[in-house]
Amino acid sequence: MSSDAGRYEYAGLDRLLHERARLGVLAGLAAHPKGLPFNDLKRLCGLTDGNLSRHLSVLQSAGIVEIIKDFHRNRPRTTCRLTPAGRQRFASYLDQLEQVVADAARARKAQPARPRRTLADPA
Amino acid sequence: MSSDAGRYEYAGLDRLLHERARLGVLAGLAAHPKGLPFNDLKRLCGLTDGNLSRHLSVLQSAGIVEIIKDFHRNRPRTTCRLTPAGRQRFASYLDQLEQVVADAARARKAQPARPRRTLADPA
Repeated sequence: MSSDAGRYEYAGLDRLLHERARLGVLAGLAAHPKGLPFNDLKRLCGLTDGNLSRHLSVLQSAGIVEIIKDFHRNRPRTTCRLTPAGRQRFASYLDQLEQVVADAARARKAQPARPRRTLADPA
Repeated sequence: MSSDAGRYEYAGLDRLLHERARLGVLAGLAAHPKGLPFNDLKRLCGLTDGNLSRHLSVLQSAGIVEIIKDFHRNRPRTTCRLTPAGRQRFASYLDQLEQVVADAARARKAQPARPRRTLADPA
């Protein structure tokens, strides 16, 4: 068993990206390579202004997301986009996440769910 | 786009299970339906005694994991095992995790990685 040391350590699950809300932000941005307006991203992720701002700030500081401020039809616009480095870092994270899902699928296959018996069950 | 509200909210990513180390503990236990001795689980997850104890305590309080203390060859033994409810809760979590991976796979397919050009690249 010693060769299995760290088998379920999942060190590749980058804590910065693993946070639930941030995962949603990253998935949303990954699906929109040209970036998304702040308000669309907010709606897609079901976040409040404050929450999204806070997470974007963390991701921006880490160089994962870039925030572009410009004007569109004379109104200020904020666009959020994955950086190339951020896209790569998210891809590595996802590789590890796929491993988690594969491990679990293997476990489920080895031990199919059975209906639970109660004490009153005569079978 | 309004119909996409919450598309990347991932509300099913149960925060209690989503924590990285706990995810490893759950994956390890899911793969061993009869349970695992504390020390084996510790090694598989690459955790310290204190860390594993703390996470098991949280999972036990939530009814996800059960801790069985008995004697084996005259020595005290601690076995950790998923409860039926815990197994079910982890399965729901994994369904949502598969959705995250599927979303990301779709995004990657739509936008295949291209080699990055440098400024010096004449192409």
